[in-house]
Amino acid sequence: LPDRSLLEAVSARADGLRESVVADRRVLHSHPELGWCETETTRFAAERLRSLGYSVRTGDAFLGDAPRLGLPEGAPGNTGLVAELSGTSEGPVVILRVDIDALPITEADRDHRPATDGWSSRNPGVMHACGHDGHLAIGLAVAEVVASFTGRLHGKFRLIAQPAEEGTRGARAVLDAGWVADADLMLAFHIGLGVPSGTLAVGVSDFLATRKYRVVFDGRGAHAGIEPETGRNALVAACQAVLGLQALAQSSRAGVRINVGTMTSGVALNVVPARAELGFELRASEQSVLEEIDRRARILVEMVAAAHEVNATVSLVGEAASWSNGARVVDWAQAAGQMTGAFQYIEKSHSFGASDDATLLLRAVAAQGGNAGYFILGANLASGHHTPTFDFDEGVLSAGGNFLSLLVCSALLSG
Amino acid sequence: LPDRSLLEAVSARADGLRESVVADRRVLHSHPELGWCETETTRFAAERLRSLGYSVRTGDAFLGDAPRLGLPEGAPGNTGLVAELSGTSEGPVVILRVDIDALPITEADRDHRPATDGWSSRNPGVMHACGHDGHLAIGLAVAEVVASFTGRLHGKFRLIAQPAEEGTRGARAVLDAGWVADADLMLAFHIGLGVPSGTLAVGVSDFLATRKYRVVFDGRGAHAGIEPETGRNALVAACQAVLGLQALAQSSRAGVRINVGTMTSGVALNVVPARAELGFELRASEQSVLEEIDRRARILVEMVAAAHEVNATVSLVGEAASWSNGARVVDWAQAAGQMTGAFQYIEKSHSFGASDDATLLLRAVAAQGGNAGYFILGANLASGHHTPTFDFDEGVLSAGGNFLSLLVCSALLSG
Amino acid sequence: LPDRSLLEAVSARADGLRESVVADRRVLHSHPELGWCETETTRFAAERLRSLGYSVRTGDAFLGDAPRLGLPEGAPGNTGLVAELSGTSEGPVVILRVDIDALPITEADRDHRPATDGWSSRNPGVMHACGHDGHLAIGLAVAEVVASFTGRLHGKFRLIAQPAEEGTRGARAVLDAGWVADADLMLAFHIGLGVPSGTLAVGVSDFLATRKYRVVFDGRGAHAGIEPETGRNALVAACQAVLGLQALAQSSRAGVRINVGTMTSGVALNVVPARAELGFELRASEQSVLEEIDRRARILVEMVAAAHEVNATVSLVGEAASWSNGARVVDWAQAAGQMTGAFQYIEKSHSFGASDDATLLLRAVAAQGGNAGYFILGANLASGHHTPTFDFDEGVLSAGGNFLSLLVCSALLSG
Amino acid sequence: LPDRSLLEAVSARADGLRESVVADRRVLHSHPELGWCETETTRFAAERLRSLGYSVRTGDAFLGDAPRLGLPEGAPGNTGLVAELSGTSEGPVVILRVDIDALPITEADRDHRPATDGWSSRNPGVMHACGHDGHLAIGLAVAEVVASFTGRLHGKFRLIAQPAEEGTRGARAVLDAGWVADADLMLAFHIGLGVPSGTLAVGVSDFLATRKYRVVFDGRGAHAGIEPETGRNALVAACQAVLGLQALAQSSRAGVRINVGTMTSGVALNVVPARAELGFELRASEQSVLEEIDRRARILVEMVAAAHEVNATVSLVGEAASWSNGARVVDWAQAAGQMTGAFQYIEKSHSFGASDDATLLLRAVAAQGGNAGYFILGANLASGHHTPTFDFDEGVLSAGGNFLSLLVCSALLSG
Repeated sequence: LPDRSLLEAVSARADGLRESVVADRRVLHSHPELGWCETETTRFAAERLRSLGYSVRTGDAFLGDAPRLGLPEGAPGNTGLVAELSGTSEGPVVILRVDIDALPITEADRDHRPATDGWSSRNPGVMHACGHDGHLAIGLAVAEVVASFTGRLHGKFRLIAQPAEEGTRGARAVLDAGWVADADLMLAFHIGLGVPSGTLAVGVSDFLATRKYRVVFDGRGAHAGIEPETGRNALVAACQAVLGLQALAQSSRAGVRINVGTMTSGVALNVVPARAELGFELRASEQSVLEEIDRRARILVEMVAAAHEVNATVSLVGEAASWSNGARVVDWAQAAGQMTGAFQYIEKSHSFGASDDATLLLRAVAAQGGNAGYFILGANLASGHHTPTFDFDEGVLSAGGNFLSLLVCSALLSG
Repeated sequence: LPDRSLLEAVSARADGLRESVVADRRVLHSHPELGWCETETTRFAAERLRSLGYSVRTGDAFLGDAPRLGLPEGAPGNTGLVAELSGTSEGPVVILRVDIDALPITEADRDHRPATDGWSSRNPGVMHACGHDGHLAIGLAVAEVVASFTGRLHGKFRLIAQPAEEGTRGARAVLDAGWVADADLMLAFHIGLGVPSGTLAVGVSDFLATRKYRVVFDGRGAHAGIEPETGRNALVAACQAVLGLQALAQSSRAGVRINVGTMTSGVALNVVPARAELGFELRASEQSVLEEIDRRARILVEMVAAAHEVNATVSLVGEAASWSNGARVVDWAQAAGQMTGAFQYIEKSHSFGASDDATLLLRAVAAQGGNAGYFILGANLASGHHTPTFDFDEGVLSAGGNFLSLLVCSALLSG
Repeated sequence: LPDRSLLEAVSARADGLRESVVADRRVLHSHPELGWCETETTRFAAERLRSLGYSVRTGDAFLGDAPRLGLPEGAPGNTGLVAELSGTSEGPVVILRVDIDALPITEADRDHRPATDGWSSRNPGVMHACGHDGHLAIGLAVAEVVASFTGRLHGKFRLIAQPAEEGTRGARAVLDAGWVADADLMLAFHIGLGVPSGTLAVGVSDFLATRKYRVVFDGRGAHAGIEPETGRNALVAACQAVLGLQALAQSSRAGVRINVGTMTSGVALNVVPARAELGFELRASEQSVLEEIDRRARILVEMVAAAHEVNATVSLVGEAASWSNGARVVDWAQAAGQMTGAFQYIEKSHSFGASDDATLLLRAVAAQGGNAGYFILGANLASGHHTPTFDFDEGVLSAGGNFLSLLVCSALLSG
Repeated sequence: LPDRSLLEAVSARADGLRESVVADRRVLHSHPELGWCETETTRFAAERLRSLGYSVRTGDAFLGDAPRLGLPEGAPGNTGLVAELSGTSEGPVVILRVDIDALPITEADRDHRPATDGWSSRNPGVMHACGHDGHLAIGLAVAEVVASFTGRLHGKFRLIAQPAEEGTRGARAVLDAGWVADADLMLAFHIGLGVPSGTLAVGVSDFLATRKYRVVFDGRGAHAGIEPETGRNALVAACQAVLGLQALAQSSRAGVRINVGTMTSGVALNVVPARAELGFELRASEQSVLEEIDRRARILVEMVAAAHEVNATVSLVGEAASWSNGARVVDWAQAAGQMTGAFQYIEKSHSFGASDDATLLLRAVAAQGGNAGYFILGANLASGHHTPTFDFDEGVLSAGGNFLSLLVCSALLSG
């Protein structure tokens, strides 16, 4: 650990970005982009990071040919970036991952501070309604703080701006592209989530593992009146799959969930449906339970399709892992949180109960022997996440930047 | 029956329209409109019929508040017309029904006579690919012939230009508005349908009765991970309805068909689907069998929804009846067909095997003691009905006009 | 053909058995045995046939290791026989097949002639309620008539007493054992079936092809409360199979039927069912349609089971083919029927509309170029087939024996 | 509370029955009877209790016309008894309930102490394989101890020998007959259940609430080939109910279970099934959750039946409530357990995780303001409950009798 005075210098430097981090957040807020489409967002971050001296990789140099889960038809899919700053000597690899995508929500145009103050969404129908604008602003602030101490850096700091967290889509590509394979410390965070301003949750647990699938059933159309027997009914196959999946959910291991959330099939009332598409998600509170239910669900879908002589193409479109912060990371983050002076309350036991695909990265790093932690930066909200009037107490930006800068620097700076 | 010389004058008058009926058809062909949207088509027909001396009713004066089956969201629904010409004395009411709607098909732009000759669709994505342009052209020609003999007319001639035959939607409103309640003779026809040029099918039978439904299941959404038990799953209910409907189709009475042709449900993978919509059709070769299967299908859908505490709204969106021409009409049409000199072959036994909603009108008139007949006017086709290169031998226009003018006039003209 | 006087001698010989054939029938009636259990019945027939000079094969010498469809647990399965009489010179092979099994019905003990006259069933719960007692009695009479003319026999007469016709079970083994592979003429018949006394139906058509299956689903039990996820639910798999099968029945080719007639599953309310058993039958009016629906049904059952990680064992337990008598056989049977003088009316067009497994044999013989025919010997009934008060006008026994003796002898006797 | 010396006298009296309670258990073990058929068992208990001075009511005087859940066809249903001993003055009503039924299991005839020692089941196929023989023996011992102190009894002691605990069937009738309506203290217990000899579990919690149902679907049979449309398919309805029930199980409130454990339907492959019967159970760890899932399950079954025009008769055949002992009872039972000197270890927190219908009685008494407790008397087992070699360490009999005598007497005896 670096000596306390150096860390106090880090904390002071972070405090100095109080205004710029808010300004960044508002620029990002007014330019929201959907997952796998964060082209301008990526450009903005890349320019800033390069100006700070970071080596930045975007596009193919970032994700190469790793599969993009849940890539919408026509989306670029080449968004996001990785930025690195190497120290003067060998040392650990510390990674901070932020997510950068917005949501398909039309932002409120009244009774809503971003609208009143003139920095609401300029992309109609798209809105930063989850706080990822703040996440990137914090990430850029941390990058700036770390860059201020380049001369004393041992090891390497890597900032990952991950596309498409909504739907738990983007992390799989980051993982497959190898960007956390050498990590000694892996950090991720979220603002808000019910944790109030002034509170920092460091002992976060109970992330649900999830896999999300899109299934296309390809059968054969036929005139329903004239020769129905020549059809292979994709809609009937899909319906049997829906009902079969329900029968897999009972488990003594709590938290198993199976939901077929969407289905579309058919073109006309007088045609045996040749095609059906459905989307479903699986969840479990333990990774091994998820994997078993995942195996059974895929078998069920594929065999039910085969039963109707229909072809099923099952595509993974989202994924996250189960996760709970380990005791060592919790203690260390508690110390950093206290040093910032920005949090009145530090919560050591907080049940997450939902999913974030950062867990794929955290779990991989832990599996290879590194440390990994996920934190919730408390912030009062104007209204719930994913609503048209979502907004948050921007005080979290400098407080969070301070906390994360301390975490990174305490690992990378020498006294 | 009027004397033969008068009928020969009718036939000669019809022959005189040989060129104008083709011109009308091409104007209509280049201005196709979808069902319940035939605004320009109705205006064209109304002007012509008024100029011929007909009393024309459109809009509310035509269909009043009769239900429009399968009315698309936002469609006008006030299209079509009824035109009447009353004779100098009392006599029978003779009705000719033509259909006027086009299809959501993009017309071919090469290797296709209408395109080559410059009279293909000016409404992108909409095409007269079934021949209803020809049907209306023939109807207008018959109206013109009949109008030429106004002075000798006993009784009343009524031409109905019916909207939305595709999907068997429009006839129910015509029936409910009362336009066939006083009919002594009800006539309808189709061109092509595999009957070659020069052939007239007068003994047409085996129309399938059909009912088509749209069902909306309204349940309750819920977060699929956090509290699935508060949801009422409309998708699961719809799937059970689909499978339940399959179990009703077996029948010793041939020709029962049940097809769920379309289904859409759900908004996101992590939400218990609150809503599902499906479309299905029922068919049977006998009216009473259709009505029994219809009763059972509606009970099934409604009770399956109730089983899941989901509300089902079942809307009739299309309907046609079973039908076969009676012997008397067949004989009389055979005589008229022969008098035209336009047909080399008159077919007395032709199995239709599909549906046309004109059958609702024919069946109603027969039930009230009138005569009713449906005829197929043979025409070689460039390609099948409902294809982008559909076109037909326009010789059918004057031949058909001649035949139908003779049928109408032999009932209404006095010697 | 033999000369008329020889055939008249045959007919007279048959008439001479008028009393003995009735006596035989009553002995058989009082000793009914279920399918694959016809031990005493077989012994009775074997003794008689040996005494008439026939070479008789029973047990393994009859059916060898051919599969016994629908063999009940514990049933002997070695019943039935084949008896042959060879002529003095080469000639055609003529086969008459009779069925010999009774039904699991308790015979009425009052208002019922067999009971009143003292020759009703001595095996409680088992009854000849379909008329197979009469079939065997007729078969033995024909055998006796033919044996009377041994000296003039050219070729070979073969009588097959087939077990287990009920459920269409026994014929498959007869076919597989090769007993009709050399047939030039194959004959089968039934008494009654709605055809009245004095009528002979020679033009019988529209036998439905059928296959009947037993499916055992083997999954894995589990305590339903404590660890349901370790179970593999055979009942759920079976239910999905039932519903999936319903969706295969719609066909433009009339007469397809799919019926799951029985299901049993599970041992206790608190155990995930490890096992389910169901029985279903398929029918179609055309053999090729049956075979296609059979292929699809087996795929459906096996794949639905696989979807639930349950094993499905599908066993054929019954089978019959589609069949209609050919014109040549009809004409020839008409002539024989007339010669008997026993029938007032000979029906040339009779739709069967059900199934008899003799059709497997008839179809095989026709396929190899032989002649084959199935006849209905009219007989008034006391009550319907398969009822506890079933009985028939025994006049059919000598009339039928006469008719069938003439058919056999006209093929085998030389003038 | 009575003074300590009196309780020590109670304990000593109980110890004195060490041999007779074992003898009673063995007599009962060799005469096992199934639920609602415990005729001899009831007679044995009634005689003993009358000889001890108890007022005993059996048959109609015990359960009157209260509904007998899960009464097997032909079972007497008039078994069990209530025995009362009233004190010399007013005081509390204390009830001890024991269960008395055996299981349909064939007892092992070797390597099994009851067989070796000559006191195994004399009723083939029936066995005391759960320990209820011991329960009744203990109950009789407690009755004998209490009777010894009649002169000092204030209030009333009531022993209920409840029929048909297996399947959680009998308690509902006891409750409905009003036998616990006046209770101040309600006691129940079980031996074994994984708790070892020498351990007494006094803080027992997490009983699962359960309801068990039998459903009979009555449709209409039809010949599956000739006129399937006239049938109302009970098997298809039952299959849809099975699959629909699966879709209700997902809940955020842990412990919901739905299991269709049995199904039987149909008589023949060629008949549309007119009848189907299924058995299912619901469980939940909270009473209110059970009641909601119960409501939904019954709606589902009834409406799915209605969807197929089939009648569903849903009968409750078993029921138990959720339950956890309260703190006051736990403390008091701990004291009694210690006083016996028979237990080395007293467990204050034991999760039950299954169901016992005594909970219906406990819950009712608690709801009316009384005290209620369920205890597990530890006993090493020869093999698991419900197995053919089940046997238990008989030391539990006097230890349990001692403990329960102290509980009863400490409430009823005056110092």
